[in-house]
Amino acid sequence: MADVVAGRESQVVLGLDPDPARLWPEALRAAPEDGPPARRAAAAVVAHCRALIDAAGPACVAAKPQLACFERLGAPGWAALAEVVEHARGAGLVVLADGKRGDIAVSAAAYGQALVGATPSPFGEVAGLRADAFTASPYLGVDTLEVLLEAARAARGGMFVLVRTSNPGAADLEDLELAAGGPLWARVAAIVDELGEAGVGTAGLSDVGAVVGATAPEHVARMRELMPRTIFLLPGIGAQGGRVEDLAPAFAPHRAAGLVTASRSIATAHEESDGPPAAAARAEAERLRAAAWALA
Amino acid sequence: MADVVAGRESQVVLGLDPDPARLWPEALRAAPEDGPPARRAAAAVVAHCRALIDAAGPACVAAKPQLACFERLGAPGWAALAEVVEHARGAGLVVLADGKRGDIAVSAAAYGQALVGATPSPFGEVAGLRADAFTASPYLGVDTLEVLLEAARAARGGMFVLVRTSNPGAADLEDLELAAGGPLWARVAAIVDELGEAGVGTAGLSDVGAVVGATAPEHVARMRELMPRTIFLLPGIGAQGGRVEDLAPAFAPHRAAGLVTASRSIATAHEESDGPPAAAARAEAERLRAAAWALA
Repeated sequence: MADVVAGRESQVVLGLDPDPARLWPEALRAAPEDGPPARRAAAAVVAHCRALIDAAGPACVAAKPQLACFERLGAPGWAALAEVVEHARGAGLVVLADGKRGDIAVSAAAYGQALVGATPSPFGEVAGLRADAFTASPYLGVDTLEVLLEAARAARGGMFVLVRTSNPGAADLEDLELAAGGPLWARVAAIVDELGEAGVGTAGLSDVGAVVGATAPEHVARMRELMPRTIFLLPGIGAQGGRVEDLAPAFAPHRAAGLVTASRSIATAHEESDGPPAAAARAEAERLRAAAWALA
Repeated sequence: MADVVAGRESQVVLGLDPDPARLWPEALRAAPEDGPPARRAAAAVVAHCRALIDAAGPACVAAKPQLACFERLGAPGWAALAEVVEHARGAGLVVLADGKRGDIAVSAAAYGQALVGATPSPFGEVAGLRADAFTASPYLGVDTLEVLLEAARAARGGMFVLVRTSNPGAADLEDLELAAGGPLWARVAAIVDELGEAGVGTAGLSDVGAVVGATAPEHVARMRELMPRTIFLLPGIGAQGGRVEDLAPAFAPHRAAGLVTASRSIATAHEESDGPPAAAARAEAERLRAAAWALA
């Protein structure tokens, strides 16, 4: 990750959360004239995401497709996801599959196969999405994260574990004070730090990242203490109210130690600026890139 | 749920976790002779799941496809999932989509569309999987669960929240003692109880269920106290070591208040018994059905 961040001079992750009801006009025109709604919508979603990657991608280091947005279009949606992942890779972006998966070992292994691995079958190996990394939910515990991590490492990729998210409900469980002291998220942070120990690369950063909401910047410095070698994936900038300027501790150990994700603020930038979507997306991604880069 | 349980005299949930490397021989023969591995494997998975549903379904009340097992086959896998869901519904089974999803509100809404709802698009509405219910992960908090629940209720369906899972790692976070007293899972149990308040049906059971591992029966009685109106989805029987005989408190409020899930122990029953897979699966599902039914 550190190499790619340096090469592209960007810590911006382009979120791909396509809503078929809010696609760029050019994408709608790219859909076939007839056929089932799922197939037409999926084609438009691919066109939208390709255009977004082409416009904003050069200012970004990674693309983060939100799996829910593709799954809701069924099999054509999953095919669209595979196409978008391929296009993002072709554009030189690291691909983070955002599905926040978490399940018992045998199912976690299947998610690993789906996202970064392959599945043996009597008919030959079935390739997965070939993402470089994915997001994971820690609720079920370390054994389930270990299985996911094993899959990520086998693919020379990484994993980002939810630690403290950007939504208001993060207070309900993640912030709960433990009898042993500290909030639940700090316990998860310790797990992330420990899991990453065996995967620290030359830049001093580990292959187990943390999802850390940018909407609670008061926690970021403490998280950095608990996870000194962890790459933080920082959602919540823009549409959710977080400001990149508040995130300096995230970037302290290394420029690549903080990745700023933005989805709607880039894809819908034209709604504020009145220009064509692609130009507005490019400008917003570049603004964010420069703001984050200036911090480190 | 209560009606269906009474009508079918079963509390058994048939887990569908197809592994392309361990399908029934008849399913392998149903795959096309050539084509890409994903497509052939997906066809075999459909044949396997259909045969399993036809054999064991009559002793069950619901089918629970594990989404990871289908996702790893890509778009053909998702198409297979849709076919299997349809077949299970046709067999009179309630369908529980097991994906343990959890995400911030806008993405949770997309998961709701994918699993139990539909997605508006300029090309017409795109139908989701049409499951009756799904599993959800609580880590991100109540706001994210509320969005999922809204989707479930709009579809007259339900949701099962992970409370205390059946894997060894459940001890890492779920069992952590809180400063305010009690383990984290008890706090989640309280959330489940509260969320379900507005969705209590005529049988006195709510539409927000709980995933409660059958491998820790010592907790089941306490969970029942905390969630008196909640349907417990009880994985961990069979392959994971849980025994249905230990679960009486789950069934105490109502026969439909405890659903026993079994996957591998049914699908691979023939490996122990030496008979044909379908007959062994039918016998094992019936054995489990009778054991659970006798408790209540």
